[in-house]
Amino acid sequence: MKSFRVSVHIVPRKGLLDPQGKAVADALHTLGFHAVGDVHVGRHLVIETAASDAAAAEGAVREMCSRLLANPVTEDFEIAGVAAS
Amino acid sequence: MKSFRVSVHIVPRKGLLDPQGKAVADALHTLGFHAVGDVHVGRHLVIETAASDAAAAEGAVREMCSRLLANPVTEDFEIAGVAAS
Repeated sequence: MKSFRVSVHIVPRKGLLDPQGKAVADALHTLGFHAVGDVHVGRHLVIETAASDAAAAEGAVREMCSRLLANPVTEDFEIAGVAAS
Repeated sequence: MKSFRVSVHIVPRKGLLDPQGKAVADALHTLGFHAVGDVHVGRHLVIETAASDAAAAEGAVREMCSRLLANPVTEDFEIAGVAAS
């Protein structure tokens, strides 16, 4: 078993309202950043896990996302990277 | 002016307590994912902004992070990517 660090992005589904992103965009406009358009706010997780190889680590993290970390109704997730650690 | 999508990761500083990550790790253990070690939870932002080039877009987003998006006492940020959109 080797150690892996798997990065995951969990983001609101395209087309769904993203009130947190809207609030950030409004605040940036207020601060004078008028060039800013849409802002999307999601979560960035780094999970350290033991697995036999990188594919197994990615598979395990996908299952974690489906079962616990991402809300399948409102969120999408993507594996951003798998690195040995 | 061109349009850019800049991705940013905002994460708790190394060595600071990450109670959200601890809670996620505990929940994963309870679900049976015993191979999981530490979990770190941060934010993943995608900011759409107009700028003359990619370097200017990245510079603007660095300033947004310093002034509003990241808490300089407890969080670090890194620009994960700049893409024309």
